Amino acid sequence: MLVQQILASKGDQNVITVPPGSTVQEVAALLSSKRIGAVIVSADGKAAKGIVSERDIVRELGKRGPACLGDKVETLMTAKIVSCTRAEGTDAVLGRMTDGRFRHMPVIEDGKMVGLISIGDVVKARLMELAAEKDALEGMIKGF
Amino acid sequence: MLVQQILASKGDQNVITVPPGSTVQEVAALLSSKRIGAVIVSADGKAAKGIVSERDIVRELGKRGPACLGDKVETLMTAKIVSCTRAEGTDAVLGRMTDGRFRHMPVIEDGKMVGLISIGDVVKARLMELAAEKDALEGMIKGF
Repeated sequence: MLVQQILASKGDQNVITVPPGSTVQEVAALLSSKRIGAVIVSADGKAAKGIVSERDIVRELGKRGPACLGDKVETLMTAKIVSCTRAEGTDAVLGRMTDGRFRHMPVIEDGKMVGLISIGDVVKARLMELAAEKDALEGMIKGF
Repeated sequence: MLVQQILASKGDQNVITVPPGSTVQEVAALLSSKRIGAVIVSADGKAAKGIVSERDIVRELGKRGPACLGDKVETLMTAKIVSCTRAEGTDAVLGRMTDGRFRHMPVIEDGKMVGLISIGDVVKARLMELAAEKDALEGMIKGF
């Protein structure tokens, strides 16, 4: 199964972004109201400058307390984004997610974001795929 | 693969807990310093009263702002815990995690916590298991 099939199954393919100057409190409010776990930081809504997750916020909050809530999100976002493309398989993407221990991955093509997938999305797709592969192999064995 | 094998592979089997009266700020500091995503709320360190995750903290922070940081953790924890036992397979546990959309599950036996596993732990185990099953089936096919 390919990343583009995961995006299609999620329906809404609008990528939510926040500008780099948003405060941490504003980002927390957005994650809360949209019921999402991470959001892309982008100045123009297209090119990804970074990604900020619930984890980044809680880590900073734990270290520095409420003072961090007025900070600009660009000071605590993860600037080094690991991304994937629509044509990649779930196997490769899931491996990268578990190795890197991150739970969200932007889908980027030609420098523009086309989606954001979470580990839950990829796990569901990969389990379906593996179950189908196993069924096919068992079918072959029974066919002998 | 069973839950107990996941716990064994994680090494440290001490379950970290916080008392119900801890503040949200204290819990954020603990999640940050221990580099964990969720912690069990327990009055005696044995019986689980609830679970609180990074997500719970950010949702409340987004809705109410820094005022929530002085609240007792028991006011925002998830009191209805979905748990598993050491003898369960990764397949069942992962299905319950993706269906319920949660990323942490306590391992509870006889009312006492024996561990806490994350979706990343279970995914890794399940992928290894499915790869092994597939290899075995392919081996059978080649053997015909």
